[in-house]
This record gives sequence, C-alpha cells and structure tokens, in this order.
Amino acid sequence: MNWEVVLGIVAGICTTVAVIPQIIKAWKSKKVKDVSPGMFIILMIGVALWVVYGVVKNDIPIIATNGVSLALNSVMFYLMMKYKKD
Amino acid sequence: MNWEVVLGIVAGICTTVAVIPQIIKAWKSKKVKDVSPGMFIILMIGVALWVVYGVVKNDIPIIATNGVSLALNSVMFYLMMKYKKD
Repeated sequence: MNWEVVLGIVAGICTTVAVIPQIIKAWKSKKVKDVSPGMFIILMIGVALWVVYGVVKNDIPIIATNGVSLALNSVMFYLMMKYKKD
Repeated sequence: MNWEVVLGIVAGICTTVAVIPQIIKAWKSKKVKDVSPGMFIILMIGVALWVVYGVVKNDIPIIATNGVSLALNSVMFYLMMKYKKD
C-alpha cells in the first residue's frame, strides 16, 4: 500500500468520523438548538447518493465510507429530532 | 455526460453545500453553543487532506469540491470562534 492510498484513507476517515464529536456533544447536553437540521438533511441526501454512486460503480471504498457517514449522520439527525423541543 | 456522472456531481454538490444552512443559522442567531468545534476541526483536516490527495492524483473534481468544502467549513469555524463567548 503506497502513501497515496494511505493519504486517501486518512482523509476518508477524517471526513467520515467528523460528526462523532457533534453526536457526543448533543448526547451529553441534550441540546441541539444552534445546530442546523438543514445541514444534516442535505448531508444525508448527499452521502446516500454517494452510496448509490458506489453501488453503480461497484466501488467498495465509496460504499463503505459513505455508508458509515449515512449511519452516523442519521444518528445525529435522530438526536436532533429527539431534543429539538427541549 | 451520462447519468452516472450526473449522479456523482449531484452527490458532490450536496455534501459540499450542506454546511451552508449551518452558516446561515449561526450568522443570523449569532449563537453556536450547541455546535461542536471538534466536528469542524476534523472536517477541515479531512477536506484539506482530500485537496492534497486531489493534487497528488491530478484529479480536478476532488480538488474543486473539497476546496469549496474547505472554504465553507472555514467560514463556519470562523463564526464559531467569533460567537463562542456569547
């Protein structure tokens, strides 16, 4: 595995796991007032389309990274819906 | 341009512009208390690495989409630093 592949994997891990600190923050504080639901709705549509693109192209890395992103962003969106009235 | 390319472009536009509603929300409310700085720090590192990856691979779409993402996420991070004490 050359360094270009490693660079791509590290970049992909960063953009995939970035939402985790936001999930932890929302989980602990139970507050999501300042977080934009629109951001997560567009993000979920986008990564879902990337998953479809990966399936069409039969590209496992695209499916895997965006599949994980879709799951994580869905968790965050669920927390937003759960806590939005508090 | 076939429909697979269109699918990839639409997916890329969604994941790139998703942060705009969050920027607008923070700009209007001047409140960012519930937004995670960690999310935007990891996201900026990730998209910056994608830009480097695009340069190494000489891949214009990767450079363009992640370059715009880096700019937008930097705007959001600036707003977070500006309003975090309010």
